Order: sequence, then C-alpha cells, then structure tokens
Amino acid sequence: MAGHWFTFFFTSLLVSAMAEASHCSTKGLPLVRNISELPQDNYGRGGFSHVTVAGSFMHGMKEVEVWLQTFAPRSGTPIHRHSCEEVFVVLKGSGTLYLASSSHEKHPGKPQEFRIYSNSTFHVPVNDVHQVWNTNEHEDLQVLAVISRPPAKVFIYEDWFMPHTAARLKFPYYWDEHCFEVPPKDEL
Amino acid sequence: MAGHWFTFFFTSLLVSAMAEASHCSTKGLPLVRNISELPQDNYGRGGFSHVTVAGSFMHGMKEVEVWLQTFAPRSGTPIHRHSCEEVFVVLKGSGTLYLASSSHEKHPGKPQEFRIYSNSTFHVPVNDVHQVWNTNEHEDLQVLAVISRPPAKVFIYEDWFMPHTAARLKFPYYWDEHCFEVPPKDEL
Repeated sequence: MAGHWFTFFFTSLLVSAMAEASHCSTKGLPLVRNISELPQDNYGRGGFSHVTVAGSFMHGMKEVEVWLQTFAPRSGTPIHRHSCEEVFVVLKGSGTLYLASSSHEKHPGKPQEFRIYSNSTFHVPVNDVHQVWNTNEHEDLQVLAVISRPPAKVFIYEDWFMPHTAARLKFPYYWDEHCFEVPPKDEL
Repeated sequence: MAGHWFTFFFTSLLVSAMAEASHCSTKGLPLVRNISELPQDNYGRGGFSHVTVAGSFMHGMKEVEVWLQTFAPRSGTPIHRHSCEEVFVVLKGSGTLYLASSSHEKHPGKPQEFRIYSNSTFHVPVNDVHQVWNTNEHEDLQVLAVISRPPAKVFIYEDWFMPHTAARLKFPYYWDEHCFEVPPKDEL
C-alpha cells in the first residue's frame, strides 16, 4: 500500500515537473498559438486574470512582451512603476487610469485620473507611477498591455504617498516567477 | 477674384500645414485616445488599412510601437524583413503567415506556411523574412502588430528568391514618411 502511494507520489512529481518544464520552454511550442488555450491565472489577486500572450521567459521574447489582462469590477493593478514603456489597448469595458508623473518628487502624490474605455489606447511613460482600475460596476475591463525591456521589473507602492525609495521591487513578477531561473554567477 | 483665390489658396496651405503639424506633434495629444478616431490610411495599397495606435513619430514612443492593420481578402503585407521583434495578435478573420528563417542563405527561399486565425498570436523572429496574407475569400483579416526598436526600418523583397543583399530598404516606412524629419547633421 505504502509502495503504491510512493509510486503515485513520484509519478505525480515527475508529471508536474515535466508540465512545468514544457510550460517554460520555448522549444516545441507552436509558432501560432490560440490565445484562449494559453495558461491563465489570477496569481492570488481576486477578480484578476493574466495571460502572457508573448513573453520573455515563456516565448523567448527579448524586446517586447504582450499581456492579456482582465479585471472584474472594483479590481485593478497595484500602484506601481517600471523602467520600461507600456502601451495599453482597451478591448472591453471601461475604467480609470491613475497616473502620477512626479518622479522628481519624493513620492508620487495625488495622481491624475483619466477615463479609459473600450477601443481606447494610452501609454504610460517610463517610470511614471500608475494604476489601472475597473471603476465600472457592471462589466469586466479587458486590456492588452505591451511592455518593452522584458522581463518586467516592477516597483510596488502601498499608497500614493509612499516615498519612491520605499517602493518594493517585485522581481521576477508574479507571472514570471514560475519560469524564472537564477542566472549562473559570472565566473569573473 | 484673383485676390480671393490667393487668399483661399494660402489659407488652405496654412490650415493643411497646421493639421500636418498637429498630426505629427506629440504635444497637446490627449493621453487616452479613441482608436477609431486616429488617422487611418491605405498608403496606396488596395484593400489595406493602417492605424498607428502608438508610434514613434506620432506619439513619442522610443521602444515599442503598436499598429492596427486590416487586410481585405487577397491582400497582405509585402515580403519583408526588419531588424526588430514583431508580435501579432489576430483580432478578426484568418489568413496565412509565410515565414522564411534562412538569413544564412543568399535568399529567403520557399517559405513555411502557417495558418493564422482570430484570437491567435505569433511572433516573427528578428530579421526573418515574412509576409502576412489574407487567404480567406470572405472576411477581412485584422491584426494588432507590435514592433520593437521603432521607427520601423523595413527591407522589401520582390519575391522569395531575391537575394537578401538586393532587398530594398524603405525608410521612413509609408506611415512614418509624413512625420519624418531628417535629423540635423552631427556637428562633429
């Protein structure tokens, strides 16, 4: 009985390790991929869905990365900044972009608010602190987000008055954790 | 009478110069833009529509650029290559990606064919010669295309057996011509 259990346990481990490897390897992936069949997760955030459409770790991208994200009503991104360009295309729903262009101050401060809506686009300048939020009570907000310089190195703020220097670097970011490998130490 | 005509002529010139300037200037543009109100053109290609959603010349992007392109049945891109990454998201319709991964040969050669379809994604590796074509007789093909290293420097091939060295550089590309300014000469 215990033998069976061990066999089951180690087979499960092996299968899960293989699944993980294939999930993170760019080899053997079809060139054209059905977006609705790509791995999707909420990464512990309620009302959230993230799909890496084209990614650094998952698909070998070096210069751009594309995400499909969905936010239920009253959910959104953390307040954050990153040292890369980001372009959004809103596919469905509506919401609010909160944007603080005050990297010269000690903290972001009260952000400007911009209404975002289906079939709109906007970009976030490098290092500007921002938050995208679904402020529509009735509908999901779905966006395509494009970033440069992948993988994302994201600094997270607890609120708009947290000093820039206290923002916490989250790297690898939630959806990259799974496939991230610590680079080998430089022998020099 | 002639005076009126001159007034009309110069006013038109002035208005068109102003429109051109505002079209190419990033200043005064709203941060959130309605994609269906952005300038759209076919650039002399039948059955084609291009919108620069976020661009280098038009919106000040430095690292990524996003295009919305529509191809009527039996139309598509030229055979071309560029030294940047490109990610496609197919929004509507279906078609064929022709891809030749043979930059080590003298010419692209017969390309591989991949079926592309609504809600699929694919990326074109840096410098691979490719063509996207609407091979569906009944429906437009609509894609979002993301490129790195804007503005695009595109090498165009007349056919798949044209030598790489004979491919013609088209820079600025059709949709960038309008806003391109020759950079001032380096004084050194």
